Amino acid sequence: MVNALFITFEGLDGSGKSLMIYKIAGQLRQQGRRVFTTREPGGTKMGRQLRQLILGSAYGSMDERTEALLYAADRALHVSQVIRPALQEGKIVLCDRYIDSSFAYQGSGRGIAIEQIRAINLFAIDNLMPDITFLLDLPVEEALGRLRGRRDRLEQEDTAFFARTAAAYRQLAAQDSQRFVLIDAARSIPEVQQQIMDTLTERLK
Amino acid sequence: MVNALFITFEGLDGSGKSLMIYKIAGQLRQQGRRVFTTREPGGTKMGRQLRQLILGSAYGSMDERTEALLYAADRALHVSQVIRPALQEGKIVLCDRYIDSSFAYQGSGRGIAIEQIRAINLFAIDNLMPDITFLLDLPVEEALGRLRGRRDRLEQEDTAFFARTAAAYRQLAAQDSQRFVLIDAARSIPEVQQQIMDTLTERLK
Repeated sequence: MVNALFITFEGLDGSGKSLMIYKIAGQLRQQGRRVFTTREPGGTKMGRQLRQLILGSAYGSMDERTEALLYAADRALHVSQVIRPALQEGKIVLCDRYIDSSFAYQGSGRGIAIEQIRAINLFAIDNLMPDITFLLDLPVEEALGRLRGRRDRLEQEDTAFFARTAAAYRQLAAQDSQRFVLIDAARSIPEVQQQIMDTLTERLK
Repeated sequence: MVNALFITFEGLDGSGKSLMIYKIAGQLRQQGRRVFTTREPGGTKMGRQLRQLILGSAYGSMDERTEALLYAADRALHVSQVIRPALQEGKIVLCDRYIDSSFAYQGSGRGIAIEQIRAINLFAIDNLMPDITFLLDLPVEEALGRLRGRRDRLEQEDTAFFARTAAAYRQLAAQDSQRFVLIDAARSIPEVQQQIMDTLTERLK
């Protein structure tokens, strides 16, 4: 039986990643498996401070290079202090956003070249790529609708930004179909959950 | 007459960078020039918070990748919010440590490959290389002697680390003799100051 497995969940805000991680973790634990859930940005104590720096408005408009480097620093710390130790203990790690978020949001949604974002983040993760990445794919209008009412800087971006990000995610999935599993997140919660569990059950045999 | 000029000071802790920047800035201002002095890490308000994260012991041992990315983030912010605006106003910028500190300390003094440090930091500075870099070169024993009594994490490193860093600095200077001016910082303060001013006077004609 496979033990340690590093699984990431990606998709637009509002695509249901957090809820799905909660449900999948519960189901895996019922099977007696050791599961660890975490998130980015902010998966460590220092990371949460960095997250406040990035999302807060205290420093005015942060340039995109600084932001990209802070996200990468948060990720490097998260890998070294949290994710890698959990995997070494034989746990299944479910992580809400990881390196593909940077590729999709910073590399395509904004101005920095994807090659530069890739270099910085491959440095940060020190070769720890996910075993499986579930992309919760959702039409842009539906993602925006689900988000109505939430407030922070990223979520004030416009529809075109969401559309570019969604397209970038689909392109990433197409380029690495070994690792990515594309999930239609517009379906019902039980249906989405079932598709994810089917994939995991197969992999954990 | 040349106006804007970006000048960095590099060397081991204890080599006299801060004092020399103070003296050179005063002399240039007496000539009626507009001078701006700054430092890394910690040249911005957020940068000072990052510096506390890096140097403080609150988070235990930080891995070297996280540290390298935080220094680079501090640098990107410093460039975009402080250095570039000052140069655009036509000022002479004197900066205590910059990109070569990362090359010397992180790329050679420690374990990360210099190519990776270079990529991250060239991303951070967005093409803003110094016009002149003064390397205040000092025998390692003298630098250690001057530092006796000061306390922070970097300065608790051992003599071998200082020697590797000094050698890395000299190599950087040899590789880019157009930009670097090697200064024998073991000489008297007036002598060091005079050599720096001679170079600047020539450049500012």
